[in-house]
Amino acid sequence: MANEAKDKMTIILFSGELDKALAAFTLATTAASSGMDVTIFFTFWGLNLLKKVSRKPKKESWMNKMLNMVNKGLPLSRLNMFGMGSWMMKKMMKDARMASLEDLMKLAKQLNVKYIACTTSCTVMGLGEGDLIEGVTSFAGAATYLAEAKESKINLFI
Amino acid sequence: MANEAKDKMTIILFSGELDKALAAFTLATTAASSGMDVTIFFTFWGLNLLKKVSRKPKKESWMNKMLNMVNKGLPLSRLNMFGMGSWMMKKMMKDARMASLEDLMKLAKQLNVKYIACTTSCTVMGLGEGDLIEGVTSFAGAATYLAEAKESKINLFI
Amino acid sequence: MANEAKDKMTIILFSGELDKALAAFTLATTAASSGMDVTIFFTFWGLNLLKKVSRKPKKESWMNKMLNMVNKGLPLSRLNMFGMGSWMMKKMMKDARMASLEDLMKLAKQLNVKYIACTTSCTVMGLGEGDLIEGVTSFAGAATYLAEAKESKINLFI
Repeated sequence: MANEAKDKMTIILFSGELDKALAAFTLATTAASSGMDVTIFFTFWGLNLLKKVSRKPKKESWMNKMLNMVNKGLPLSRLNMFGMGSWMMKKMMKDARMASLEDLMKLAKQLNVKYIACTTSCTVMGLGEGDLIEGVTSFAGAATYLAEAKESKINLFI
Repeated sequence: MANEAKDKMTIILFSGELDKALAAFTLATTAASSGMDVTIFFTFWGLNLLKKVSRKPKKESWMNKMLNMVNKGLPLSRLNMFGMGSWMMKKMMKDARMASLEDLMKLAKQLNVKYIACTTSCTVMGLGEGDLIEGVTSFAGAATYLAEAKESKINLFI
Repeated sequence: MANEAKDKMTIILFSGELDKALAAFTLATTAASSGMDVTIFFTFWGLNLLKKVSRKPKKESWMNKMLNMVNKGLPLSRLNMFGMGSWMMKKMMKDARMASLEDLMKLAKQLNVKYIACTTSCTVMGLGEGDLIEGVTSFAGAATYLAEAKESKINLFI
């Protein structure tokens, strides 16, 4: 690496919960706005964050339908009182004038945070390129993540 | 960094569960007692570990009350059989003569483990300085964490 | 460290869920097959992955029996629809011709991924050497993990 290379951070976003996604994107956007080179590797439930809302998965099997049922919306990682948790957190964030997840994801793209969608997880979940939002930088596997992480000063699994 | 600088470790403690807190404080105290410089950044549910037991949050809204209901005590991160999980783990730890979380947290302070409370999370949860235990070293945001993590050899998100 | 030393990665496998275990072993085997030196430190629920299926824990107390009930099989980390989650994921993985967890764990051993079983967790859970599979490289505590992690380029807590 050249001396003038930017400091790097990688995040594996494995979780699909609202609170963990907020933590990941707060870290990613703060790092990127301070000049770091940030890559988020979306895998497993984390891929839900990259799904187009309107599109159905390409391979719409009954299993996908059931998985979508499970995945609908982003729950909190903790007991969420029959679905009230996410709503409460959004309300509290709004009251405290915090950025929403949507705002943070927009900001992340403006700051050139790289989004890598895990090819293996996409295959398992029947998700094709057309099912994901435009911000996805590339589709790649664990080897690509590891190459990036080896060069990074901060690597987190969220 | 000078050559004589201590090796550093940072932990983001996002989770509020007993088992994850035990893992975090076991790592933190072991690292600190071997001469490492350790910082724990408490965010989201992790902030519950810093709450004074007797005090109510400053902004006691009905939402805070409900969040507190959700957060009461530290559950395990896994299915806990109607609340038996935490109690069982405490009993088993005692039987095995393990240090309790309270002991580990006391030890952490004796070993100068730094506690940073995430300002953003405090705002969302309506927690002021007076609501938190005395061991808190400072209130700061993601930028402070990142500056610390960039200088650290081990960075974990728990 | 000598220049010819291999790049290292450590994973703390704290979680006992199928999806997180799959993520951990996919990363571990990919790293090891690209020439990295990989250590997995199994602690808390992660120890379930190392249990011999047929053996009962040495100290078979009623608490162990209950813990085993809780731990039976590897659930998913997300809402699993009354147990259907794991089964669904296995079916989808098979349909997508993915390696199973069993395959990945076999591969990990062929690639010399080191398994360290956390002594503290073993004590709490009443697990002796005879209760664990043969692949376990050693029994050790947090200090051993930290020594390894300080020398590693990638450290993850899963």
